[in-house]
Amino acid sequence: MAHRNRIGNLYSLTSFGESHGPAIGGVIDGMPAGVAIDLEELHREMDRRKPGQGNGTSSRNEDDEVEILSGLKDGITLGTPIGFIIRNRDSRPEDYDHLKDVFRPSHADYTWQAKYGIRDHRGGGRASARETAARVVAGALAKQVLAQVGITISAKAMVAKNMADLSEGDTVGGIVACEIHGVPAGLGEPVFGKLSSQLAEAMMSIPAAKGFDIGLGFDFPNHTGREVLDLWRVDDGKITTATNFSGGIQGGISNGNDICFRVAFKPVATLMQPIEGIDNQGNVVNIEPRGRHDISVVARAVPVVEAMAAIVMLDNYLLNKTTHL
Amino acid sequence: MAHRNRIGNLYSLTSFGESHGPAIGGVIDGMPAGVAIDLEELHREMDRRKPGQGNGTSSRNEDDEVEILSGLKDGITLGTPIGFIIRNRDSRPEDYDHLKDVFRPSHADYTWQAKYGIRDHRGGGRASARETAARVVAGALAKQVLAQVGITISAKAMVAKNMADLSEGDTVGGIVACEIHGVPAGLGEPVFGKLSSQLAEAMMSIPAAKGFDIGLGFDFPNHTGREVLDLWRVDDGKITTATNFSGGIQGGISNGNDICFRVAFKPVATLMQPIEGIDNQGNVVNIEPRGRHDISVVARAVPVVEAMAAIVMLDNYLLNKTTHL
Amino acid sequence: MAHRNRIGNLYSLTSFGESHGPAIGGVIDGMPAGVAIDLEELHREMDRRKPGQGNGTSSRNEDDEVEILSGLKDGITLGTPIGFIIRNRDSRPEDYDHLKDVFRPSHADYTWQAKYGIRDHRGGGRASARETAARVVAGALAKQVLAQVGITISAKAMVAKNMADLSEGDTVGGIVACEIHGVPAGLGEPVFGKLSSQLAEAMMSIPAAKGFDIGLGFDFPNHTGREVLDLWRVDDGKITTATNFSGGIQGGISNGNDICFRVAFKPVATLMQPIEGIDNQGNVVNIEPRGRHDISVVARAVPVVEAMAAIVMLDNYLLNKTTHL
Amino acid sequence: MAHRNRIGNLYSLTSFGESHGPAIGGVIDGMPAGVAIDLEELHREMDRRKPGQGNGTSSRNEDDEVEILSGLKDGITLGTPIGFIIRNRDSRPEDYDHLKDVFRPSHADYTWQAKYGIRDHRGGGRASARETAARVVAGALAKQVLAQVGITISAKAMVAKNMADLSEGDTVGGIVACEIHGVPAGLGEPVFGKLSSQLAEAMMSIPAAKGFDIGLGFDFPNHTGREVLDLWRVDDGKITTATNFSGGIQGGISNGNDICFRVAFKPVATLMQPIEGIDNQGNVVNIEPRGRHDISVVARAVPVVEAMAAIVMLDNYLLNKTTHL
Repeated sequence: MAHRNRIGNLYSLTSFGESHGPAIGGVIDGMPAGVAIDLEELHREMDRRKPGQGNGTSSRNEDDEVEILSGLKDGITLGTPIGFIIRNRDSRPEDYDHLKDVFRPSHADYTWQAKYGIRDHRGGGRASARETAARVVAGALAKQVLAQVGITISAKAMVAKNMADLSEGDTVGGIVACEIHGVPAGLGEPVFGKLSSQLAEAMMSIPAAKGFDIGLGFDFPNHTGREVLDLWRVDDGKITTATNFSGGIQGGISNGNDICFRVAFKPVATLMQPIEGIDNQGNVVNIEPRGRHDISVVARAVPVVEAMAAIVMLDNYLLNKTTHL
Repeated sequence: MAHRNRIGNLYSLTSFGESHGPAIGGVIDGMPAGVAIDLEELHREMDRRKPGQGNGTSSRNEDDEVEILSGLKDGITLGTPIGFIIRNRDSRPEDYDHLKDVFRPSHADYTWQAKYGIRDHRGGGRASARETAARVVAGALAKQVLAQVGITISAKAMVAKNMADLSEGDTVGGIVACEIHGVPAGLGEPVFGKLSSQLAEAMMSIPAAKGFDIGLGFDFPNHTGREVLDLWRVDDGKITTATNFSGGIQGGISNGNDICFRVAFKPVATLMQPIEGIDNQGNVVNIEPRGRHDISVVARAVPVVEAMAAIVMLDNYLLNKTTHL
Repeated sequence: MAHRNRIGNLYSLTSFGESHGPAIGGVIDGMPAGVAIDLEELHREMDRRKPGQGNGTSSRNEDDEVEILSGLKDGITLGTPIGFIIRNRDSRPEDYDHLKDVFRPSHADYTWQAKYGIRDHRGGGRASARETAARVVAGALAKQVLAQVGITISAKAMVAKNMADLSEGDTVGGIVACEIHGVPAGLGEPVFGKLSSQLAEAMMSIPAAKGFDIGLGFDFPNHTGREVLDLWRVDDGKITTATNFSGGIQGGISNGNDICFRVAFKPVATLMQPIEGIDNQGNVVNIEPRGRHDISVVARAVPVVEAMAAIVMLDNYLLNKTTHL
Repeated sequence: MAHRNRIGNLYSLTSFGESHGPAIGGVIDGMPAGVAIDLEELHREMDRRKPGQGNGTSSRNEDDEVEILSGLKDGITLGTPIGFIIRNRDSRPEDYDHLKDVFRPSHADYTWQAKYGIRDHRGGGRASARETAARVVAGALAKQVLAQVGITISAKAMVAKNMADLSEGDTVGGIVACEIHGVPAGLGEPVFGKLSSQLAEAMMSIPAAKGFDIGLGFDFPNHTGREVLDLWRVDDGKITTATNFSGGIQGGISNGNDICFRVAFKPVATLMQPIEGIDNQGNVVNIEPRGRHDISVVARAVPVVEAMAAIVMLDNYLLNKTTHL
């Protein structure tokens, strides 16, 4: 359940922050009480999202130092909300003066201006992918809680285009394939709160995400019903299925198999080539590339996908505790 | 924003009903006051969802007569909630006795039993696609409101497999491609409430939906950033784009172009062939086909996709009225 | 958590219906699965709300026959939403023709017209106390669930004015004092979701409710802190308090004592005397009394207060299951 | 609409923070874009809540310096969430060591321990009235927005007991009477979202609040219906009422008159006298008074009551923009 700057129902994140304002951060509400949190592990997750994590990521020096302000005492969750901030330390606002009245193509510049009549043009403002750092905080904590009930999450990045073939300064998109292991049968809610529906919502809220599918997904239409039935198998007395075309969710509810989904990302819209923008008077303007940018977001998107999956899964794990009296 | 059996924030549908109980129905909250409603038009939308609407749909006689119980006076909306019911008249519960303790493959039988410890096994119970009739009611009314502000919705069904090649009793899935026209720039909410995120959630809540993408979607990774930039164009003094790879949404907010997305549906899991189920003791059982079922849900899914799109768009249209004082 | 026509977070009621439309009703979402429901008991609760239940209630023949449409199978809850309707059978709309363009004093006529620009003037429309029947349905079911965990609710009506002293056709208000027994310590949520806060919201949403207090409430300012400390007592090894000035809630959370609160109701605004109304042109008009009306709502308010208390308590009981992993 | 640590639907505050942790703070979502904010005015509101604001308030040096982290650019709201923190600088945790395993009477110590199984015992932790500083931030900003549409809020503190009669170290409660001026007719939502219902919820969430009433409130039962009818008056062609017994709300919706309500506060439970607590083993323990505490919270509660009123009113002002298309 997402609403504006909040996602989740029982375990929720409300986030804030512009890319070049004083700080980004958020409030995590609904963290169960009495859980031991490993802050070192949190920092390792943050590091995975940092620039320079793989091929074609930017060298901007983002210092993602998370300051936890509440909700923990001696490393144990209090059940109260966890407020946290991450200072924006590498802000050079003057780098963005040339973009003040310019809308870059395939960016959020124009749409945010159209919506609000005002925007923070520096580094994308609130639309910057920097806001995903807050997601990773909430996701990393959720992961630690989920681990205690045996649920783990992995994902891998796949880039379709051969980066070697790229012209200088061009970019690529890609796909992140995520698997959630150890999920008990019964998570997810009918009818609008299907687990697949909630995962789709969460993933499509990640910047540059343009597609989501689960199990065979968009390949389903290439098969007949007979070909893709997940026939039953009894394994050690437990009912399971011989195949997992469904991707671990049937009728919106987890069936105990691994949950397998994919998220498609468009190529980074910020090229290291001159591109045509438009100003707020309708004049075409040339935008010269500046600084360093990512060739692909996919590697850095992996911890964000995992974080969003963790938020959804913990939320649904808690919600399912209320199915029976 | 979906939560269990409710979707939408300001314009919301809370639905109820099992396939073979007395009735299905719902409550629409947040309908603007003073809007003239054409009930004939509502019934035409309901007819589009009925069986027998095209190739390979079942002949089950569903009588989708909608009874509006509140919220309208002399055809004008009161601003109060619109309660409605649709009686289930063609219920022959004995048709389902053989499925009482049986889990069909790739159905919701097992997962709902795992979640609730109890289920209505007749025709899928609450997991039946029959619940989509309530969505079409809320969507049809939303469409009429949206039409007054110039927003219209169309969609088309695409079946990948050639139905002529199917073995007797087998089924196919397909894709529904939806376009939303006349959308003003500025709809959608950051960060978690992106319009793309909300549309994904809504579409993935439709039974048998297994994938969602927007604009180029899953084809984005096959292109470089340079190839898929939506460059600006000034059209009659209005800023727009020469291409629409983004599918009408940038940074989670509509840009004024048509919104274009696709929903992938898996093949119907109910074959008109004997299939292997499993009973609640773990014994494999043969399920013989009975009655008539759809070869493909895709044609019937079109009005449901449109309905969900209409609910999301009206909700966001109303929400955007609060962006400024 | 209330929003327009819905109340409750995990156990929620979304209601609909105008007093003189075809029906009123609602959808109860979040009912735990597998609970046996006694429909006879539900009908007894409905009867308590019916007119003619005590001194000074109207003789209007309201037939509050509840039709449950979903969510139950063989008397057991399915965990799916419970849709229900109550037909409005005693509607004589022509009785209200004289009020079509008239605003009665101290009624909702003017405010609803101001808000919506349209209203159903017949019997108060959606603002009629008839809508409380839907509350009693959701409350009666909640009571049955709560009884299984030992939580019970009682309330009593108190009328301050001596009814014998009333002039013919005049009316009185009163106070309903409610007690909730068997509440475990720990229910209620910080900071905004205090149990006292949620109870206040629920009670003040009842028609004609104008005040709410808990424990000593409005009498607290007449005492010093020393006088009203709830000092500890150990009872059978269990920590409790010697007094219950707090009314069972401290810091927003139940402390295991009985929860004691009061709701103040204003006198019925519909007198059986001629009163001055105003029409939509600003002309004062005389309204002659018609039909039969309640001298006091307080007796009939008792089951409504109990119902709202039950909804809040079940909601919080379920919510508290998510406090720990 | 409150849920745990969030209040408000369209204009919402999600708050966090323990009294003696690193900081308290919150996220304000739904602030309309393009509004000029006067930060000096915000600080003046914060000062009104500070200790030492009147008779009998504590001299603890709370430094309520608000650091705004997002959502503003050059003093103008961006429409994005406003994150803010207030550092806790005067924390001397060792002052509270003697309370680590002790439950004070009429405090939240026991109930929070019962709920969470863990608590921050220092200064009340999350249950401390210090969290109200976050409310004042959100309320002060809401006030500035409301002022632009002519809505203003005032309140006054009333202490029933004569403070001069108090024994040394004893405390008193009191009543805050609040008026909201300039409210247009039409704010508030049926049926559960009545304006009176939302105000009650908001006020009862303030620490030590034990009662709420509106208009004549708890005095209504002492009058007959005839005595308290708000008869119509036409004033400069505008329909209004000669009296305002209703307190500005009829049928849950504002009628254009001043909204008048009262909040009853219990006496401060922290006396400057020895009191009996109990430890977690059930042993009675003597608690000696330390430091300085408020004799009455009522004076300091005034800006908090106003803040909560402002949050509710702005939320409803925005919500009402969606009543019509």
